[in-house]
Amino acid sequence: MPTQFDPPSGTRDFLASDWEFRESAFGRIRSVFARYGFEPLVTPSFERLDVLLGKYGDDGDKLIFKILRRGEHEETGEADLALRYDHTVPLARVAAAYGSQLPTPYKRYAIGPVWRADRPGRGRYREFTQCDLDTLGSTSVMADAEVVLAAHDALAELGLTGFRFLINSRHVLAGLLEGFGVPAELGPSVLITLDKLDKLTPAEVSAELAGRDLPDDTAAALVGALTGPVEQVRDALKASEEGAAGIEEVDELLSLLAGQVPAGRMVFTPRLVRGLSYYTGPIWEIVADGIPGSLAGGGRYDHLIEQLGGPDVPATGGALGVERILMALPDHDRAHSRLDVAVTVMDERYAARSFSFAAAARAAGLRASVYLGSSGKLGSQLKWASRTGARWALIYGSAEDEANTVTVRDMTSGEQAAVPVSELTSYLAGLADAAGLPGPS
Amino acid sequence: MPTQFDPPSGTRDFLASDWEFRESAFGRIRSVFARYGFEPLVTPSFERLDVLLGKYGDDGDKLIFKILRRGEHEETGEADLALRYDHTVPLARVAAAYGSQLPTPYKRYAIGPVWRADRPGRGRYREFTQCDLDTLGSTSVMADAEVVLAAHDALAELGLTGFRFLINSRHVLAGLLEGFGVPAELGPSVLITLDKLDKLTPAEVSAELAGRDLPDDTAAALVGALTGPVEQVRDALKASEEGAAGIEEVDELLSLLAGQVPAGRMVFTPRLVRGLSYYTGPIWEIVADGIPGSLAGGGRYDHLIEQLGGPDVPATGGALGVERILMALPDHDRAHSRLDVAVTVMDERYAARSFSFAAAARAAGLRASVYLGSSGKLGSQLKWASRTGARWALIYGSAEDEANTVTVRDMTSGEQAAVPVSELTSYLAGLADAAGLPGPS
Repeated sequence: MPTQFDPPSGTRDFLASDWEFRESAFGRIRSVFARYGFEPLVTPSFERLDVLLGKYGDDGDKLIFKILRRGEHEETGEADLALRYDHTVPLARVAAAYGSQLPTPYKRYAIGPVWRADRPGRGRYREFTQCDLDTLGSTSVMADAEVVLAAHDALAELGLTGFRFLINSRHVLAGLLEGFGVPAELGPSVLITLDKLDKLTPAEVSAELAGRDLPDDTAAALVGALTGPVEQVRDALKASEEGAAGIEEVDELLSLLAGQVPAGRMVFTPRLVRGLSYYTGPIWEIVADGIPGSLAGGGRYDHLIEQLGGPDVPATGGALGVERILMALPDHDRAHSRLDVAVTVMDERYAARSFSFAAAARAAGLRASVYLGSSGKLGSQLKWASRTGARWALIYGSAEDEANTVTVRDMTSGEQAAVPVSELTSYLAGLADAAGLPGPS
Repeated sequence: MPTQFDPPSGTRDFLASDWEFRESAFGRIRSVFARYGFEPLVTPSFERLDVLLGKYGDDGDKLIFKILRRGEHEETGEADLALRYDHTVPLARVAAAYGSQLPTPYKRYAIGPVWRADRPGRGRYREFTQCDLDTLGSTSVMADAEVVLAAHDALAELGLTGFRFLINSRHVLAGLLEGFGVPAELGPSVLITLDKLDKLTPAEVSAELAGRDLPDDTAAALVGALTGPVEQVRDALKASEEGAAGIEEVDELLSLLAGQVPAGRMVFTPRLVRGLSYYTGPIWEIVADGIPGSLAGGGRYDHLIEQLGGPDVPATGGALGVERILMALPDHDRAHSRLDVAVTVMDERYAARSFSFAAAARAAGLRASVYLGSSGKLGSQLKWASRTGARWALIYGSAEDEANTVTVRDMTSGEQAAVPVSELTSYLAGLADAAGLPGPS
């Protein structure tokens, strides 16, 4: 049951282990994107309301979080700003604002929160991270291939297995409609129905097509082709000029990808539509065994940037559904260690020395802290050390003071060693090295 | 002049080189905090409005960005959510929400944007990053010392020099008021005036104190003590029990810090007040030569978490003014290189091979991309390679195809080497190693 102390509905507090898991995953994705020459772009969390309104359709407009005007204008109840809804509209604004200051082509990624006033549900949040990568300014299918490969490598880098890319082209779809004689005015609605072939049975889709005034035999032929052997579709497409161009585009893309990824991971999938009507060339989606829906998707959208208020540049890109991808990753180790070295404080007189020991451990590249509680008992302090997950505890009492040594206790084995104070950093660096921990930075 | 494509007033777009500069600085700060055993906490970008309202005073309330209710409630013009204004109120909420699930003491840092509807100005933004670190649950002055040291090390790690810590205690201030016979009811207003001793002359401060109904001789004695030799203040404080306790606290703190930082960097500064009335023990501020105001500040605030809606826990912490600190850092190198290896595409037939070469470069840990433009000319493609900042360009034409080699061109010297295709990764790894670039991950 939610309490007054819970975060707002649809949002999350990330404590250390959850955040570190996310940050590590995002860091891996960033490093893959950087290796492909994509560079980061970070835009403000809010935009002027008029920049966002009307860009996401009527349903999208309703999900925009709007920010009230301030000061004397607050009582008007009007909004003038709105929280970022995706990374694409800000990209269009940036392309318009910085124009020739941006590299050509402009290859950028954006990993950051977006906000949507959706009804929160299992795995659906009002504040969630979107991860986009896009290339502006290239018409080459190599640009499409690069985006697909970078997305592929990011998922592989995260340790995901059992995933594959569904590949298609809007030209293939247009060619199919043409080849099977679908009247032009029915095209868009027929595509919307065909998009359901991954969820509905062929019979259900045929029935829905019939309801859209498509002749029964055309519907049956279309559904049959899309659910039959892919060679049949290839043959059918040769009948249409756009279809033939589509097949050529898909084959070019597949041949660029072939050498770079395991065989069978890139699958020509003529039934793939992707809902959004703005795609103009290759389209793709990543699906994985046992996970409904898609983990990522994208395609070429040569006129969208202009429609969104930017310059008229060719563009191709994609988005990783990072929230879903994180959920699909093997459960990470929740045993979160806060410290490597826990420094006990056996007597107030030794407090400054304890600070030096912690500093010595940090100089060895380790995470270290002194005991900040009020108990003077070794047992209590070792319990604290254990709770922090520390591998080693340092003890310094009157005996050690006399001998000018520190007792280094292995928290797993309980073994203890007396180490001369002056050798503490090098001794701990040796332990860190043996344990495979990062050394001095 | 702002255009319709600029980000909203008071916010910034961060293109690659600016963002990488910031991220690298934040990464250094994070790693210092982690070495001290502080762990990350990330709370949502917005909170319920009632969680924030009334926590920052009347002036603060006016600067909160409020989010309009949604759907059918939008037309009420009311807000129910608000953008995060600082990291402390969310910390209080988290302390209340997670209670015993949090470690004791709970040492956390938060680095992330906050939003304030301030009038934007030079170096003042409406979306800016705050960087807090705090320890909840310890009354020990060691906890205060640890926060101060972590802040110190973070600044040092960023390469900042010429900074020092002003150290004081609220008990010292209370003892001074008592020792100099300041009437209790004048205490708070006298402190507010004394806080101006870093900006106004002693005479100006004395005059303002007189205006607050403090007898002239008391004002003169107080100002004289705070601007005179510090030993005089120490003597004066012995007259008051709280003053003596304050001096003891300051000395304990200084002795814990003494061995850990360069001499002279921690300065007992009795005139330091810090505006906020919630401090209850040691207080500190970081100042730097040539920079007006402070770069960071903090102190002990044992009852604030409860006042903000959390449990009643002792607490100490501080905030780094990272936006100011970033501005104080030496100008970073704006020459931003996007690629290490630029792969030309001399013929469409070789596109797939070019992809393999880029992959080989990435396997050597390098950032690589193929040419995505439409020119088939080597000169144009080398110009592109040069603009990306790449150190090496790869060339593969019919001659290379015949010899099964790749031409690796050094973009600085213009020297070229013919490298067998099968040896490309190891050859590039050797170049990367010689150039001091990170190797394969």
